[in-house]
Amino acid sequence: MSPDFDRADPHAVRLAARTGALTGHTAHLAPGRVQANLAILPVALAHDFLRFCQRNPKPCPLLAVSEPGDPMLPMLGRDVDIRTDVPRYRVWCDGELVSEPTDIRDLWRDDLVAFLIGCSFSFEAAMLADGLPVRHIEQGTNVPMYRTNVPTVEAGPFGGPMVVSMRPLTAAQAIRAVQVTSRFPAVHGAPVHLGDPAAIGIADIGKPDYGDPVEMRPGEIPVFWACGVTPQSVIEHARPPFSISHAPGHMLVTDLSNSAVAVM
Amino acid sequence: MSPDFDRADPHAVRLAARTGALTGHTAHLAPGRVQANLAILPVALAHDFLRFCQRNPKPCPLLAVSEPGDPMLPMLGRDVDIRTDVPRYRVWCDGELVSEPTDIRDLWRDDLVAFLIGCSFSFEAAMLADGLPVRHIEQGTNVPMYRTNVPTVEAGPFGGPMVVSMRPLTAAQAIRAVQVTSRFPAVHGAPVHLGDPAAIGIADIGKPDYGDPVEMRPGEIPVFWACGVTPQSVIEHARPPFSISHAPGHMLVTDLSNSAVAVM
Repeated sequence: MSPDFDRADPHAVRLAARTGALTGHTAHLAPGRVQANLAILPVALAHDFLRFCQRNPKPCPLLAVSEPGDPMLPMLGRDVDIRTDVPRYRVWCDGELVSEPTDIRDLWRDDLVAFLIGCSFSFEAAMLADGLPVRHIEQGTNVPMYRTNVPTVEAGPFGGPMVVSMRPLTAAQAIRAVQVTSRFPAVHGAPVHLGDPAAIGIADIGKPDYGDPVEMRPGEIPVFWACGVTPQSVIEHARPPFSISHAPGHMLVTDLSNSAVAVM
Repeated sequence: MSPDFDRADPHAVRLAARTGALTGHTAHLAPGRVQANLAILPVALAHDFLRFCQRNPKPCPLLAVSEPGDPMLPMLGRDVDIRTDVPRYRVWCDGELVSEPTDIRDLWRDDLVAFLIGCSFSFEAAMLADGLPVRHIEQGTNVPMYRTNVPTVEAGPFGGPMVVSMRPLTAAQAIRAVQVTSRFPAVHGAPVHLGDPAAIGIADIGKPDYGDPVEMRPGEIPVFWACGVTPQSVIEHARPPFSISHAPGHMLVTDLSNSAVAVM
């Protein structure tokens, strides 16, 4: 990753993505700013997907929806162009991954709608600021994520199980984490489950479906949050003729401060 | 219990206690109003106990402290006289229970200080209003309470283990209960533990130290709140020459509405 841009400035981070100076992960860039998951769909499917997000706000908290055909997202910051400002994209045709470009200007169409969905970086920052541990950050690995047997509420072709991320905490830390993350419904909010993994259909906590396993220490329980991989998994399952997402970990960095999306 | 008073009016409830028309439990009286645990100590011990409460706000959330020798508590409601307005008292000498009068006018002294401490009735009302189950209320029994191995922070002669109350909930309900009860720090607030009882020194969840056992259903975990029995147990252990408490379940009914003590 090139050092030749101001890593603390969200606009500079987006420009670096736009010019190709940044093609890697966005974790730890522009600290304190909201980062977002991306889903781009043709307008013919967009209303179904919008209803899906409305019905499943914990895995799919919507930060912004673009005007059809308009790549600009002024509600998320200065000069945000969704065609260029994500470091790496994934392009899907009929549910198959076809390419991972760093720019989608040549793929943009007048019928596309961009959905920006909250991501856990914001509530993890709040947890760390409160003195709560975030194990996968300590370990320097990706957060462990699991497919559950908890169904999402369907809308049109969109549906399927919720994906959750997991962070190990003591019971007292878990109670505090509920308080801290409840302030952030726009970025998944409070946990959806804690304790027994089998109760939500997770057979082996040591074998996440996405990301990396993390150490569970004595006295800790697994605490599960609804995860932004859910909408990606749901779109993949719906097999739309055309869609675009961000590459995992390569988020849109917005100008919004984390505290601005806190409800109190 | 006599029906000849307005059970919805907190002042009428207190007058009924004052006149002897009410000598029983206060659960379900004056719904929506804050009820309080009582501890009365000589002023020589009052400062230590006040520091103890300040250091242990979860088990000992102070609603009001009287002026030394003054039995009136105007901050808790109209015409509140702590010598008469609790339906039944317990009088302790050197840590031994000596009587259970319904009136302490003849015991009142110029050196006594009354401490009024929040009680779980308020947050249970908030749980029920939110659709969360409260098992001991469903069962019509007293809440199960347990001595733990979690130490309180000492002050003068006051110290010892925290006592907790327990309500069984599913994990999702427990997460919601953290949110709901966090609004009420003046009445014990958020849980202090959930899940494994042994982690806080409880050997057998089916054998509470105070109150009655409750049914645990499949998929439920025990959720533990700091309990107002803690200050009683701490005072008993300190064996002051003289003290007065309310009899269990016979609380002071205040004019404060539950919503008025919510922090948000």
